[in-house]
Amino acid sequence: MIPTPPDWLAGLISVINGDKVSVSPSTLGDHSGDKWYASHVPDVVVFAESTADVSAVMKYANENRIPVTTRGAGFGYVGGAVPVRGGIVLSTMRMNRILGMHPEDGVAIVQPGVITGDLQAAAHAVGWEYPPDPASLKDCSIGGNIATNAGGPRCLKYGVTRSYVLGLEVVLASGEILRTGGRLHKNKTGFDLIGSFTGSEGMLGIITEATLRIIPKPASRAMLAAIFPEFEMAAAAVQAILNAGHLPSALEITDTFTLAAARKKLGAETFPPGDAHLIVEIDGRPAATLSEIEELHQLLTTLGATFIERAPDEASCERIWKLRREFSFSLRDTGLTKLNEDIVVPRSKLVELVTFARRLEQETGIPIACFGHAGDGNIHTNLMVRDYGDPEIRVHADAALDQLFRWILANDGAITGEHGVGLAKKPWIRQALGETAFATHKVLKNAFDPNGILNPGKFLD
Amino acid sequence: MIPTPPDWLAGLISVINGDKVSVSPSTLGDHSGDKWYASHVPDVVVFAESTADVSAVMKYANENRIPVTTRGAGFGYVGGAVPVRGGIVLSTMRMNRILGMHPEDGVAIVQPGVITGDLQAAAHAVGWEYPPDPASLKDCSIGGNIATNAGGPRCLKYGVTRSYVLGLEVVLASGEILRTGGRLHKNKTGFDLIGSFTGSEGMLGIITEATLRIIPKPASRAMLAAIFPEFEMAAAAVQAILNAGHLPSALEITDTFTLAAARKKLGAETFPPGDAHLIVEIDGRPAATLSEIEELHQLLTTLGATFIERAPDEASCERIWKLRREFSFSLRDTGLTKLNEDIVVPRSKLVELVTFARRLEQETGIPIACFGHAGDGNIHTNLMVRDYGDPEIRVHADAALDQLFRWILANDGAITGEHGVGLAKKPWIRQALGETAFATHKVLKNAFDPNGILNPGKFLD
Repeated sequence: MIPTPPDWLAGLISVINGDKVSVSPSTLGDHSGDKWYASHVPDVVVFAESTADVSAVMKYANENRIPVTTRGAGFGYVGGAVPVRGGIVLSTMRMNRILGMHPEDGVAIVQPGVITGDLQAAAHAVGWEYPPDPASLKDCSIGGNIATNAGGPRCLKYGVTRSYVLGLEVVLASGEILRTGGRLHKNKTGFDLIGSFTGSEGMLGIITEATLRIIPKPASRAMLAAIFPEFEMAAAAVQAILNAGHLPSALEITDTFTLAAARKKLGAETFPPGDAHLIVEIDGRPAATLSEIEELHQLLTTLGATFIERAPDEASCERIWKLRREFSFSLRDTGLTKLNEDIVVPRSKLVELVTFARRLEQETGIPIACFGHAGDGNIHTNLMVRDYGDPEIRVHADAALDQLFRWILANDGAITGEHGVGLAKKPWIRQALGETAFATHKVLKNAFDPNGILNPGKFLD
Repeated sequence: MIPTPPDWLAGLISVINGDKVSVSPSTLGDHSGDKWYASHVPDVVVFAESTADVSAVMKYANENRIPVTTRGAGFGYVGGAVPVRGGIVLSTMRMNRILGMHPEDGVAIVQPGVITGDLQAAAHAVGWEYPPDPASLKDCSIGGNIATNAGGPRCLKYGVTRSYVLGLEVVLASGEILRTGGRLHKNKTGFDLIGSFTGSEGMLGIITEATLRIIPKPASRAMLAAIFPEFEMAAAAVQAILNAGHLPSALEITDTFTLAAARKKLGAETFPPGDAHLIVEIDGRPAATLSEIEELHQLLTTLGATFIERAPDEASCERIWKLRREFSFSLRDTGLTKLNEDIVVPRSKLVELVTFARRLEQETGIPIACFGHAGDGNIHTNLMVRDYGDPEIRVHADAALDQLFRWILANDGAITGEHGVGLAKKPWIRQALGETAFATHKVLKNAFDPNGILNPGKFLD
């Protein structure tokens, strides 16, 4: 079925070049969802090529009360870019230029459609680094990273995306163009408008340019990958490492289930026996990482690691990360659908979380794989279901998710650490925020977008 | 003259214990200003002892449209806590308990009246660190630090206060109690409400509790203090250090004027000849800092440093910092009043800034001392005037400040990097923000404080 073009299409084309507007069914279909399990076909897709384009579209949409859902690379995990109320999907993917790379000021200036990995490569080319490293960095866009305040393994030491946003250009719901911050590493000029838009999931404004902090690239890194007989021992090691004064760039833990899947995929001999896997990565000056990795090796031995692989240089570190990425692929190879929940617990509750996951697994019959950013308490908890598209299975899985999120909230945790709320976490957001914070969100939303046209139907509706 | 108590005093005492309310002239006088050059006597000072107290006061004040100016330790540098519209000064200084120190979760939970230095000491006692280090840390409060998003030398590596606020309890203008965030190192539950209040200078809400991130305390630190023949060479060294892949915990530069004052106070022999002074501090594992300081020593020699003092351990580092603090005292010893402007420039413009300052000095006859956080481009530019209280001198000084701030804005700089706007920067804030951002500030302010009772008379009025 070919959808009927909306009656406002001609009006839209009167404010933006028609070449940038598509109503082709395949384009509409390609822009109906992200990596989550929901979709809705928009009326129109606009491929903005400039801030002026975005401003013109927003002015028109605001006057005509047309929903606008901004979309970056479409690699979100929570349905944040699904245009659930139809209207316009505004793609930023043609705004994909790195406008400047300025080590002399410690900044990179980018358009929102730049792929995160491309920005990192451009920074590396001048010997600098953009630290945030979401797992999908080869596919996701900076605009999406800012809209979700994306994290990643390295955020333990380096902080999440927000810590790297020094300036923004934002098109407001009205079409007005706001510029805030700049190529400055400290700035106390008024309120934190950058914070208001970072992580706002397209509901408060549209990011059209960002000035990002880059840092001197650490000259070297080193890693240890350790096997522990029990998960509790690996979790205790996380705390012991920090207590000893180390601040690793990554501290990643993996549970029994995931390890079993990886052994199945890669061969049992890949990982010596043991129920938990721990990765410690450090970075810094070459001499420093060499001596620190030695200290950490000794510490992990004392803490009961039964096997430790040492990666003293870039190439061997990359090998360990490659193996780490296989954990995800191994889970995929089970043939099950992975409902990846990026929950967070206070770091002291890592063991309790995994114990709860084991209980939930037994109660529901749904296998649960836990692995992730142990130093942050941000453990990806993956419910492995047969077919999430099957209504019966979905009801069962959603009931299990409900139990998980209730446990998280009862244990001072967060229902999302880095993916955002989108549609996936919408059923729990009100309880997670509490009534006063929820009402304050509405106050903010209403102040910035009085007509409710920016990404409507998401967690405040 | 004893001020007449306001007619709403009895009403106020009906909602909060009278022991917590003072109208004594000396108390009112003590709460009429901060470290800047403005004051206004409030009608009443309330010493809140709990969140419930703050909530009751705000509810009453909101219903009766009474201005409320929140005050921490009163160590602000921009008049942010001056109750310019009278009403209530709400002191948080009796809410001064550290509620919890939890290395196991990497957090400290504090009331707003805790002195920053006391928090650091408590963190050190368990081997952890709270990195933000404003110069006044022995006197200023965490509540004030959050309200101004305070910085300090170490923020080059570790980031400003915002990077350490994981959770907040805030009393809103209505008296409602908002809790946002928690003891979690990643949290993407909704918008960044923490950012909305951090740096809001008491104009959007009152912070009554904070959950702060603490990190493993680096086991060692080391420093170099170098003399360069010319300021340009020291500024070039700042960039060269970063380009070589070092990320120092501090990188502090000092100009000729300041160095001359220091030589006068401490003896010419304290600093060998040369027009600029540069401090480089690194921290990390003991073996690492020892080898890195050696690399840096060689680098600074190559870059033309004519004298380098090496501080390889805690005690010798403290000696260098002590000397660094003498720079401020030396300026005070000139007998002049120091108008300390915490301006920021893109790092590549350090030399241009100092060149401009020299020109401004010649044009106005006002000596200008520049020193500060070179790595951040955050250079404290001190106009040394005879008596800022003298109206004629003040007009002259304000004209010079106006030239300085105009130059800053024309050069992509910020009029404040860490002190805030308050009253001191109010004349320039609208130009600094631009009309759209200024209007957006008003939208935010109106949404959070529709009756305009929170710290009125500041930069949006």
